Amino acid sequence: MTDRSLSIVILAAGKGTRMYSRQPKVLHQIAGRSMLGHVLALASGISHAKISVVIGPGMDDVRKEVVRWSPDASIFVQENQAGTADAVLAARDQLAERGDVIVLYADSPLMRPQTLAKLVSSLESGAGVSVVGFEADDPTGYGRLLTDASGDLIAIREHKDASADELNVRLCNSGVMAFRLPDVVAVLDRIGNDNAKGEFYLTDAVEIARRDGLKAAVVTCEMDEVLGVNSRDQLAVAESIWQTRARLAAMRAGVTMIAPDTVWLSFDTVLGQDVTIEPNVFIGPGVTVGEGVWIKANSYLEGADRKSAAGLRIDTGAEVGPFARLRPGTELGADVHIGNFVEVKNAVLAPGAKANHLTYIGDGTVGAGANIGAGTIFCNYDGFNKNRCEVGAGVFIGSNSALVAPVRIGDGAYVAAGSVITTNVEPDSLAIVRAKREDRPEWAAKYRAMMQRRKG
Amino acid sequence: MTDRSLSIVILAAGKGTRMYSRQPKVLHQIAGRSMLGHVLALASGISHAKISVVIGPGMDDVRKEVVRWSPDASIFVQENQAGTADAVLAARDQLAERGDVIVLYADSPLMRPQTLAKLVSSLESGAGVSVVGFEADDPTGYGRLLTDASGDLIAIREHKDASADELNVRLCNSGVMAFRLPDVVAVLDRIGNDNAKGEFYLTDAVEIARRDGLKAAVVTCEMDEVLGVNSRDQLAVAESIWQTRARLAAMRAGVTMIAPDTVWLSFDTVLGQDVTIEPNVFIGPGVTVGEGVWIKANSYLEGADRKSAAGLRIDTGAEVGPFARLRPGTELGADVHIGNFVEVKNAVLAPGAKANHLTYIGDGTVGAGANIGAGTIFCNYDGFNKNRCEVGAGVFIGSNSALVAPVRIGDGAYVAAGSVITTNVEPDSLAIVRAKREDRPEWAAKYRAMMQRRKG
Amino acid sequence: MTDRSLSIVILAAGKGTRMYSRQPKVLHQIAGRSMLGHVLALASGISHAKISVVIGPGMDDVRKEVVRWSPDASIFVQENQAGTADAVLAARDQLAERGDVIVLYADSPLMRPQTLAKLVSSLESGAGVSVVGFEADDPTGYGRLLTDASGDLIAIREHKDASADELNVRLCNSGVMAFRLPDVVAVLDRIGNDNAKGEFYLTDAVEIARRDGLKAAVVTCEMDEVLGVNSRDQLAVAESIWQTRARLAAMRAGVTMIAPDTVWLSFDTVLGQDVTIEPNVFIGPGVTVGEGVWIKANSYLEGADRKSAAGLRIDTGAEVGPFARLRPGTELGADVHIGNFVEVKNAVLAPGAKANHLTYIGDGTVGAGANIGAGTIFCNYDGFNKNRCEVGAGVFIGSNSALVAPVRIGDGAYVAAGSVITTNVEPDSLAIVRAKREDRPEWAAKYRAMMQRRKG
Repeated sequence: MTDRSLSIVILAAGKGTRMYSRQPKVLHQIAGRSMLGHVLALASGISHAKISVVIGPGMDDVRKEVVRWSPDASIFVQENQAGTADAVLAARDQLAERGDVIVLYADSPLMRPQTLAKLVSSLESGAGVSVVGFEADDPTGYGRLLTDASGDLIAIREHKDASADELNVRLCNSGVMAFRLPDVVAVLDRIGNDNAKGEFYLTDAVEIARRDGLKAAVVTCEMDEVLGVNSRDQLAVAESIWQTRARLAAMRAGVTMIAPDTVWLSFDTVLGQDVTIEPNVFIGPGVTVGEGVWIKANSYLEGADRKSAAGLRIDTGAEVGPFARLRPGTELGADVHIGNFVEVKNAVLAPGAKANHLTYIGDGTVGAGANIGAGTIFCNYDGFNKNRCEVGAGVFIGSNSALVAPVRIGDGAYVAAGSVITTNVEPDSLAIVRAKREDRPEWAAKYRAMMQRRKG
Repeated sequence: MTDRSLSIVILAAGKGTRMYSRQPKVLHQIAGRSMLGHVLALASGISHAKISVVIGPGMDDVRKEVVRWSPDASIFVQENQAGTADAVLAARDQLAERGDVIVLYADSPLMRPQTLAKLVSSLESGAGVSVVGFEADDPTGYGRLLTDASGDLIAIREHKDASADELNVRLCNSGVMAFRLPDVVAVLDRIGNDNAKGEFYLTDAVEIARRDGLKAAVVTCEMDEVLGVNSRDQLAVAESIWQTRARLAAMRAGVTMIAPDTVWLSFDTVLGQDVTIEPNVFIGPGVTVGEGVWIKANSYLEGADRKSAAGLRIDTGAEVGPFARLRPGTELGADVHIGNFVEVKNAVLAPGAKANHLTYIGDGTVGAGANIGAGTIFCNYDGFNKNRCEVGAGVFIGSNSALVAPVRIGDGAYVAAGSVITTNVEPDSLAIVRAKREDRPEWAAKYRAMMQRRKG
Repeated sequence: MTDRSLSIVILAAGKGTRMYSRQPKVLHQIAGRSMLGHVLALASGISHAKISVVIGPGMDDVRKEVVRWSPDASIFVQENQAGTADAVLAARDQLAERGDVIVLYADSPLMRPQTLAKLVSSLESGAGVSVVGFEADDPTGYGRLLTDASGDLIAIREHKDASADELNVRLCNSGVMAFRLPDVVAVLDRIGNDNAKGEFYLTDAVEIARRDGLKAAVVTCEMDEVLGVNSRDQLAVAESIWQTRARLAAMRAGVTMIAPDTVWLSFDTVLGQDVTIEPNVFIGPGVTVGEGVWIKANSYLEGADRKSAAGLRIDTGAEVGPFARLRPGTELGADVHIGNFVEVKNAVLAPGAKANHLTYIGDGTVGAGANIGAGTIFCNYDGFNKNRCEVGAGVFIGSNSALVAPVRIGDGAYVAAGSVITTNVEPDSLAIVRAKREDRPEWAAKYRAMMQRRKG
């Protein structure tokens, strides 16, 4: 550590033309969070850093996303996109004369915290400029990091300018850089735009710093940490890399996945030991799963969506699915069973409760050990408001029943199959709503004969 | 272009023994269309070509498939399978003396239109015979294309006949050929069958043409374009190649796929910009999806199946799934929501209509802004006929209701939860079908005691 | 064959610390069966072998799993884990003085029967010790099998002890060994523990046997046959290898899989010719599928689960899914259709019966050609017992009906939509349970006005 201040500048002004989207590029998501959100979370891991984000003009949604994840971050607007150095200088008011600066990219959401930590350390170890590099199997097209015998960075050479020897270099420039300079703004201001595109490139700072007698260093990371996303297929690749990492970490911690390639996790998923996840399970944001929970195939779990971030918690030993859909605000107690074609939203189920088939439980509570029959609907919506159903402990709801909220079913009560319940049911009593049956002998035989005559 | 005629002969007579199928090989499907259909579509892209298809004896289903995709194509039967040259000659009546001929294979469904266009061009550029070749990483087993310094084709050498030098050649023969000959039938008739299998091989035409002083050329393509399908595992590989191409094209055009490997498209799928597709979505034939539509995980969409080809259209901003199943004849207006465990078939939903849970909407209409409660069933089938339900604008259908078709629910009406509606409901009125409730205090407690006594 | 006895000793005592599981390692599953079960099945393929399993102290669940798959196997407890030779010697009572011995590992579930057969043969061909080896692309870390010019095994060299030349050897030791020795126990007793870990290594038997003048041989197999599972990510890799093999075998036998990577089979799955399986289908244990059956996407089939092993059989020409869930005890006759969001458990459906939408059929029978309407529930559970519904041939069950078991619907009967049926229905008659409808004109308009006033 040091008493120098540290600014992390996140560049988020790119329009992302190749995304072919109405949405700014950095708001596209990986693992249930925007790319920008991932980079903000990475930056927030350096606790003493001040975060600045450089956005483009009119990017109000990007501004909101910054505030959502990092309310204390400073936001700057780059008026004209004239290169990376120009972008960093949009935050010049934030760049303290004697402070350290790290530049990250909001469309490069996969850097690991340990790489960022190494970058910080490299400044502590005497580098004036430090560049994150990676070994490429095929470096074609990348700028090469040219180093001397001691590993210090001599220059960044663009592919098109490289000599035959330099083309053999496989250490490539990621664009991520850090600076500990007497005056970082002054150095950036010295960068020119005498190049084909007329842009101001941050990489030129290496040469300037070296001319000033400062040391330039390289910090290496895996290639997949610095993947930049410019199109939707690259977004899919980034998602895949993220998921592969997260699945492996979960399995290493004691989660069984029969087919990890078909399990999707979110940035904040928490999975307990001995959780089993069958194929094709989608876990959105805000989900916490306790020990020994069994999530069967084709389940869809979300603790947060566009309407709610109330969370989703599943306790020890519960079973979910196949074909279950759990939505925000759901809490499943220990050993709860949620079966096929069942949706639960904003509802708390006490331990041992069961809803095994074709049921919608929306806005309510279900007591311990209650059994919700197949085809039961919690009628939570009257066309205007959402209301709650409260089902007591040990209750038995017969199949194909409808509970019209607000309504309370007392502990131990029975609701007969097919009943529509609009007012409270007393504990331990039976409520039955059912018409008298009428039988018409031979009707079906005659009906069939008539219909067949008509058809024939 | 030229004033010469062009015949495309598609060989489709193979039995496909290694498919172990009752169905002829070329009817097996890729992306919702038979392999034969793909090759017919490819051939139809050359607008001035006349298409001939050579089938085997008794292949009536193959004949129908030809007519389905290319009603103007000529169909010829190859009586005995005696090699590729014999197969082409089955279409001899179609092969105009002075016309060009291209030979394609119905079990090779992945050639890109640009490769076929290059093949046509090679004839225009002076080739008498032109062969499509590909570079193989491992050419073992393939016939090699031997070329001279100028790139002209000298010979096709079978693997087993190749010298050590020739075995190093990685340019391989795909079997796809084109001819511009003074008399193509005459040349094919000169091909002999003096070989191990006693068959007449089209490849021999290269040598004959060269002996006649004609130029032989090579047109190259990617190896995956000429994959031949002889078994179901190769069929799966071909499907995978097709899907990978289609997913990439969709992403490049502005579609987000969280997990492209689990999204399946069909040959005619149309996806608008900013469509988001979550994992595990299956899109069958006949589907058109508008801008900004969100298709959540585990959705299954088909505009055509074995019973209907009525199409499926989803308008701007609609949300579908998770666990939605949309079938032929469905039209979802702008901002319609179809939620989990909902099936829609042959029904038109006006803008803003919602059916969020456990519902079957079959054969009907739903008006703008109507809300179809959880568990609602459109009873479209009486055991003999399908009838329609018409639900007006702004209608509220209470949960677990059944609408028995034919029936009409007027604009703005309410149907109370659990009602079975068999005759029309007036606009703005409430219809309720519900028995009187009966409560039996303490019944449940006594019942439990009795059952536990019996069990114990 | 020989008159010598053969013992197969399966080592299953490992704790599997890196699994981070409460469950012993060898009970973790591949393709619906424990790894131990796979190895027991492999061993059982050698019909004249006696099977012994060496488990750890207190592993009662492992003991039960042995009995489940191989009731005749002997079970021995290794008190302290002191190496593989020590583990084998835990079964010393079983190792007949003059008998052959093969040592397998319960955490290595992927060996093919033909490799085990080759191992047996190598003993017949004169080897005193035979070791299963595999060619590794990157042998780093593996023990190398050093052989002489004739292919005999000279020594097993640990990676850390290998010379530069030996490091180039790619033939590696799998640990699987076989012995035909005058006295195998005597040889194993001579193995010492003078090594870093102080353990007794079975591999040392090679050197001892050779010193005794016996021949040591190598039997080779594919690397993926001897994958050892020590962590959950390796378990997932083993599952993936198993599935890839099983899918390929199924396709080669005439099964179409649109996306084989998303079809999961079990160890005992039986699939007929011309079965089509769409993407994302999970088939658990105990499932037999007849010819020409079509399993649509997102189906989940199990013939055995933790509660039942009653099996699941689907006859010729049936259609299942999408979104179908079939559970143990289900039998679907020819041409039965089970559609979306339908669950069937412990029920027999006669040929031509249909349940196409949102239905639960639990514990019952459905007669030939019967039509079960959308939203129908078999109410099989009264809170204490499971009872059966019997639905006759040609019956029509109207939508949203509930059949309260035990109940019988006679052949040809009709049940009107929305009815709750608690007692038998006569053949060919109509049963209708429905209240009288009440209409309240203008109610909905007034209600809306009131609610909007309140909201506003």
